[in-house]
Amino acid sequence: MKIEHLGIAVSNLEQSIKAFSDLLGTSPYKTEVVESEGVKTVFFQVGDSKIELLEATHEQSAIAKFISKRGEGLHHVAFAVDHIESEMERLKSEGYTLINESPKEGADQKLICFIHPKSTGGILIELCQDRP
Amino acid sequence: MKIEHLGIAVSNLEQSIKAFSDLLGTSPYKTEVVESEGVKTVFFQVGDSKIELLEATHEQSAIAKFISKRGEGLHHVAFAVDHIESEMERLKSEGYTLINESPKEGADQKLICFIHPKSTGGILIELCQDRP
Repeated sequence: MKIEHLGIAVSNLEQSIKAFSDLLGTSPYKTEVVESEGVKTVFFQVGDSKIELLEATHEQSAIAKFISKRGEGLHHVAFAVDHIESEMERLKSEGYTLINESPKEGADQKLICFIHPKSTGGILIELCQDRP
Repeated sequence: MKIEHLGIAVSNLEQSIKAFSDLLGTSPYKTEVVESEGVKTVFFQVGDSKIELLEATHEQSAIAKFISKRGEGLHHVAFAVDHIESEMERLKSEGYTLINESPKEGADQKLICFIHPKSTGGILIELCQDRP
């Protein structure tokens, strides 16, 4: 496993792009809207991992709800896996609660699954695998 | 730059060690108490990065205050830099607010500096450099 990316919920994407470009000393390599999730995402490469900034595109978006409840900040940590379905099976058998029972399509050409934060010390974990 | 580690505030270190060992499929490689910060830390290697679990050793610890205010969860993101002092100068000149004005000693043989979350989309950023 490796940290594939950190997902950061932001309320003003343009301001955050500026801040993270300054901080990381690099520009984002991709912008993508994921209609099904109600998010606009921007990716930075940082070493072997990525930083994903997430801005809500409408008020029912999970990101809009997250920000109204907790404010801007780290939203999830994504780990890269080779075989998402077998990893989901393994974690489920060890007592983890999966938020989606089958992999769904995420940004950046990934199949993804979220693990409920109640079993991971308050952290929303995403598993992701490159889409075939 | 690369993501050196994620710092995760936890209230029950033993439970979280079990959860992250299961999740990552590996055991922690180090446990360290940092008296000056009032924390007990445990490190996992994940690809090129690390996961640091932080448990408070007393109630005045920043980690105890964080958990009582926000609950368990991601506390900071640390980026590895080669020259922490010049990076601190650069970010300061670009308007970032540094929490400590000179590098201090952190866990895992590092010199560290924190950047205030108000300038980074709500995220506490740590810069860290290997101690000479």
